[in-house]
Amino acid sequence: MKARVVVTLKNGVLDPQGQAIEGSLSSLGFSGVAEVRQGKVFDLELDGTDVESARSQITAMCDKLLANTVIENYAIEISN
Amino acid sequence: MKARVVVTLKNGVLDPQGQAIEGSLSSLGFSGVAEVRQGKVFDLELDGTDVESARSQITAMCDKLLANTVIENYAIEISN
Repeated sequence: MKARVVVTLKNGVLDPQGQAIEGSLSSLGFSGVAEVRQGKVFDLELDGTDVESARSQITAMCDKLLANTVIENYAIEISN
Repeated sequence: MKARVVVTLKNGVLDPQGQAIEGSLSSLGFSGVAEVRQGKVFDLELDGTDVESARSQITAMCDKLLANTVIENYAIEISN
């Protein structure tokens, strides 16, 4: 089973990396970019076929390792 | 207009960061994780409302800055 976890900064948390990218895009001549925020994506390949148990396992992985839940949100997509 | 760009390593490209995460998950007691690959996500806020011109602009951004197309793939999702 494949799963994708997308980890993004919460609203209001400063994102200097995103701001740097925004500045670079502007220097490269791309206008009309109001904001850039960078996040992380994890593509997981899991054994087993039970979607619900996979989702609860991945939620635990996010809380323990993949995301810093103080400043980051995460979203889990599971595809069979 | 909001757009999300997901940049992932191409198949066959070594991902030591993903392997480290896989090892950490295993150390934390999560079994059944066959593979982890890490990528990047960029959330863009764009001026304008033309989806097609936005898509071509974002494609140019990916080719020039956001992705290393030698080793990375990118996917663009645009939501209004």
